[in-house]
Amino acid sequence: MTVQAKPVSASRIDNHVYKIFPNDLNARKTAFGGMIMSIADRVAVVAAERHSGNVCVTASVDSWHFVAPAKENDTLVFSVSVNRAWTSSMEIGVRVDAENSYENTRKHIVSAYFTFVAVDDDGKPLPVPALLPENEREKQRFEAAEIRRQARLNTRESLKRFKA
Amino acid sequence: MTVQAKPVSASRIDNHVYKIFPNDLNARKTAFGGMIMSIADRVAVVAAERHSGNVCVTASVDSWHFVAPAKENDTLVFSVSVNRAWTSSMEIGVRVDAENSYENTRKHIVSAYFTFVAVDDDGKPLPVPALLPENEREKQRFEAAEIRRQARLNTRESLKRFKA
Amino acid sequence: MTVQAKPVSASRIDNHVYKIFPNDLNARKTAFGGMIMSIADRVAVVAAERHSGNVCVTASVDSWHFVAPAKENDTLVFSVSVNRAWTSSMEIGVRVDAENSYENTRKHIVSAYFTFVAVDDDGKPLPVPALLPENEREKQRFEAAEIRRQARLNTRESLKRFKA
Amino acid sequence: MTVQAKPVSASRIDNHVYKIFPNDLNARKTAFGGMIMSIADRVAVVAAERHSGNVCVTASVDSWHFVAPAKENDTLVFSVSVNRAWTSSMEIGVRVDAENSYENTRKHIVSAYFTFVAVDDDGKPLPVPALLPENEREKQRFEAAEIRRQARLNTRESLKRFKA
Amino acid sequence: MTVQAKPVSASRIDNHVYKIFPNDLNARKTAFGGMIMSIADRVAVVAAERHSGNVCVTASVDSWHFVAPAKENDTLVFSVSVNRAWTSSMEIGVRVDAENSYENTRKHIVSAYFTFVAVDDDGKPLPVPALLPENEREKQRFEAAEIRRQARLNTRESLKRFKA
Amino acid sequence: MTVQAKPVSASRIDNHVYKIFPNDLNARKTAFGGMIMSIADRVAVVAAERHSGNVCVTASVDSWHFVAPAKENDTLVFSVSVNRAWTSSMEIGVRVDAENSYENTRKHIVSAYFTFVAVDDDGKPLPVPALLPENEREKQRFEAAEIRRQARLNTRESLKRFKA
Repeated sequence: MTVQAKPVSASRIDNHVYKIFPNDLNARKTAFGGMIMSIADRVAVVAAERHSGNVCVTASVDSWHFVAPAKENDTLVFSVSVNRAWTSSMEIGVRVDAENSYENTRKHIVSAYFTFVAVDDDGKPLPVPALLPENEREKQRFEAAEIRRQARLNTRESLKRFKA
Repeated sequence: MTVQAKPVSASRIDNHVYKIFPNDLNARKTAFGGMIMSIADRVAVVAAERHSGNVCVTASVDSWHFVAPAKENDTLVFSVSVNRAWTSSMEIGVRVDAENSYENTRKHIVSAYFTFVAVDDDGKPLPVPALLPENEREKQRFEAAEIRRQARLNTRESLKRFKA
Repeated sequence: MTVQAKPVSASRIDNHVYKIFPNDLNARKTAFGGMIMSIADRVAVVAAERHSGNVCVTASVDSWHFVAPAKENDTLVFSVSVNRAWTSSMEIGVRVDAENSYENTRKHIVSAYFTFVAVDDDGKPLPVPALLPENEREKQRFEAAEIRRQARLNTRESLKRFKA
Repeated sequence: MTVQAKPVSASRIDNHVYKIFPNDLNARKTAFGGMIMSIADRVAVVAAERHSGNVCVTASVDSWHFVAPAKENDTLVFSVSVNRAWTSSMEIGVRVDAENSYENTRKHIVSAYFTFVAVDDDGKPLPVPALLPENEREKQRFEAAEIRRQARLNTRESLKRFKA
Repeated sequence: MTVQAKPVSASRIDNHVYKIFPNDLNARKTAFGGMIMSIADRVAVVAAERHSGNVCVTASVDSWHFVAPAKENDTLVFSVSVNRAWTSSMEIGVRVDAENSYENTRKHIVSAYFTFVAVDDDGKPLPVPALLPENEREKQRFEAAEIRRQARLNTRESLKRFKA
Repeated sequence: MTVQAKPVSASRIDNHVYKIFPNDLNARKTAFGGMIMSIADRVAVVAAERHSGNVCVTASVDSWHFVAPAKENDTLVFSVSVNRAWTSSMEIGVRVDAENSYENTRKHIVSAYFTFVAVDDDGKPLPVPALLPENEREKQRFEAAEIRRQARLNTRESLKRFKA
C-alpha cells in the first residue's frame, strides 16, 4: 500500500488551551514542568495519529528548556504541528505559551520536539505518509527537524559509555 | 551563608512505584510517554528539594529515548538521584523500569536527566550545596552530568537560528 | 472606563482536542455526557475571559441535545466562539465533534450555548465589551443568540410555577 | 416482555454529597459550573439505570440557570429523582444545593433536567418502565416534565434554521 | 459556650452513590480497597462536620474487613451516620454496599468506623455536641460504639511494645 | 506446585514519595486521612503482588491511629514491607512519615497493617510463599503480625452481635 503525502495543515492543532489549576502549582505558585510535558504529549499524539492514520507511541523527546515560568491563573496555549516525517517516524513540534487573558499578554514557556512512531497491533512500526511543508515557516521547521535528528543521533552516540 | 556539601544518599529515591492504570494506556495497551514524564518530574523535584533545601523548578530536561514500552499491569519503578550540582542548578537522573510483579521480571523503559533550579519567593535562583559522589557509580554519573551539560549548551547554540 | 468592542477572532478557540479515556466510557463504550459538558465549560470560560478581560462565571447553559454518541478511541474536537455580548453577559457557542483520527472522519456530537457573566472580587457583574461579528457565519450566530436569549426568558417564565 | 411500572422512591437519590476542592474554584473562589454539571450527570445516570434496569445515555439536558454561586468550603448536596418516563426515555431532575456545614445553612445553586435513554449493546433504545408518582410533589414534577418536554420540542423547532 | 445535643438524623447521609470506573479495578476486575476507603473518609467527614459544626480531621479508623468484592459496573452505595459523640471526638459508621442497578441486587462490601476530631485553626480539639440516638437501631449503634472504643484502647495498649 | 519461601527484601518498598497537593488539604491545611489510606493501599498491593506473584486484593485493614497531621508542602514517605505470610494471606505493614524537605525534618503520621489475599481469575484464594525474616526488626514484625492477627479475630468475634 502506498501512503499518500499530507500537508502540515491536515494535522495541525493551533489553539489547545489549558487553564492552570491550584494542583498544578508548587509553593512558589509556578506550574510544574512535568504537568506541561504530559499535556504536550497528549496533544502531540493527536497530531501524530492524524498524520499517520494509526495508533502512535512516543519514541523520544528532545531537550526541553523552560524559558519562563507559567503562573497561577495563566492559561497554557499549545500550538502543535508535524514538522517532518521519515520512513516510520515523525517529529512533532509543540510550542507552549502562557496567556494572561485578563491583560491580553502571552509569553513563551517552552518548545518541545517529540518523535512518534506509528505501530500495529504487535507494536511493530508502520510506514507513515510523507509531509508536505507548504509555506516558509513550515519549510524552515522541516529543515530544522533534520538537524535535530542528527543531533539526537550524535548525542546518543557520545553518551553511550555513560548510560546507567 | 555557606551551603554545606551533601552526599548523593541524602536525597536519593530508589524505589518509587506506580502501578499502570487503564487510563494510562493507548489503544495498543502501552503506557503514554507523557504520563511517565510527568511522574518522573514529580519524583525528581523531591530529590532536588531534599538536596537544595528550597523550592525547585524544572529548568530543562534532556532528550528522552524510550527503549521499550510499558504495558498493561506493569508497575513502573523510578530510581532517582542527584548526579551533580553547579552554582545554582542540579542534574537529577531518573531511571524508569517496568516490572512485571507476577513473573518477577523488569525491563528498562527510559532514562531522563532533569535540570532543576532552587528559587526564592520571587523566582530568583538560590545557591545549592555541592554534591559529594561517594562510590564508583556516583562518580561516573558525576562525570557524565558535565558532558551532558556541555552537549545541552552546544545543541542549544547550533539550533538558535531555527527556534520557532 | 469605556470598554472597546472586540472581534470574534480575538477570543475564538478552533481546535481544542480531547482524546477519550477508558474512564470516560460507560458499559456500552460511549462517552458520558457530563464529561463532555464539563470540558465544554472549561474551554468556554477561556473564550469568555479573553473577550471580557475579567474572571467569568457560568450563569446559564441552554438545552443540550446529543445528536450522536462519542466512542472509545475517538478524539473530541471543541470549537468555541463568543456569539454575542450584552451589557454584562456573553453567549459562548461550543460545537463538539468526535473525530476518528484513524479513518479521518468526524461526526457532530452536540452544540451548546453558555451564558457567562464577568464578575469583580465581590461577585458583582462587570460591563463587557461589545462583540463585532465580521463575516456571514458570525452574523448569523449573533442573530440566533438573541433569539435563544428570548427563548430562555420565555421558558423560564412559563415554568416558574413548577420550580422545585 | 412487559415492563412493570415503578415508583419514584425505587430510584431516588436524596443526599449525595460533594465537598468542594481547591481545583474546583476559579480566581473569585466560586465553583466552576461545568464541574457541577458533570457530577449531576454522574448521579442522574444512576437513577436512570435503577429505573430502567439498563445502561443509560444522556440524550439531552434542559437549560441550566445558576441562581447562586457555590463557594470555597461548601459541600454540594444533590437530590435526584426520575420525574417522568415515556416510551424509551426518562426525565431526571437534579437539584443542587450548597451547604455550609459549619453554619448549618443551605442555598439553592441550580436545578437541572436530564433526558436519558436506555440502550442495548448496539446503542438502540430499549423500552423503560412507566413511573408511578405517589405524592403531591411527585405528581407536580410528573406534570411539569411533560410541559418541559413540549418546550424542548418547540425550541428545537424554532432554532433549526440557525443550527451551526 | 454550651454545645446543644443533636439527633443522628441531622447529619445522616443515606444514599451517596459512586459508579465504579475502569481505573478503580485491578486485573481481576474487582475494585481496589483503598479507593473505597478514600471515598468513605470523604463522605464521613461531611457527617462529622455537620454534627460538630467545625472542620474535622480523621483521628483513627477501626479495622476494615472486606466481606465481598465490588465488581466492574457496580455502583457503590454509602450509608453514613454519627454513632456516638464524646468530649471532643465522634465515631462515624460507614456501610458500603455494591449495587447492580441492572439486576436490582445489592451486597454488603465493608463496614467501617471512623473517629473524627473537630479542630480549631491551630489544630487543637474543640468540644462537640452530644448525640441523641432516637430509635432502636441508633441506640444499638450508640452502645456498640462504646465497646469498639474500649477495644481500640485495649488493642493499642497490647501492641505498644511492637510499634515500629 | 510448591511455593518457595522469599525474604522480606524481595518485596520491600522503602522510599515511595508523594508531595501533598492543594486538593489533598482541608480548611485547616492538613491532609485528608482517606487520601493517605488510598495511597498506602496502592503501594501495599505492589509489595503483596511481588511476594505472592499473583493479583492480590485487600481483605482487611487493621485500625489506623493518626499520630500527627501532614501539612501543606510536606512530602509523604511510605515504607512498606510484608510482615508475615500465612496459607493464603499476607500482612503488609505501611509506615507513613511526613517530610519537610526544606528543613530536613520528618515526623511519623500513621502506621497501617493490611491483609492481602492472592486470587485466581475467579477470585478464589491462591497459596502464597512463606516469608523469611532475616534480621531483628523483621523478626519482631513477624511476631507482632501474629498477635495482630489474633486481635483481629477476637475483636471480630466480640462485635458480631452489633454488626449493622
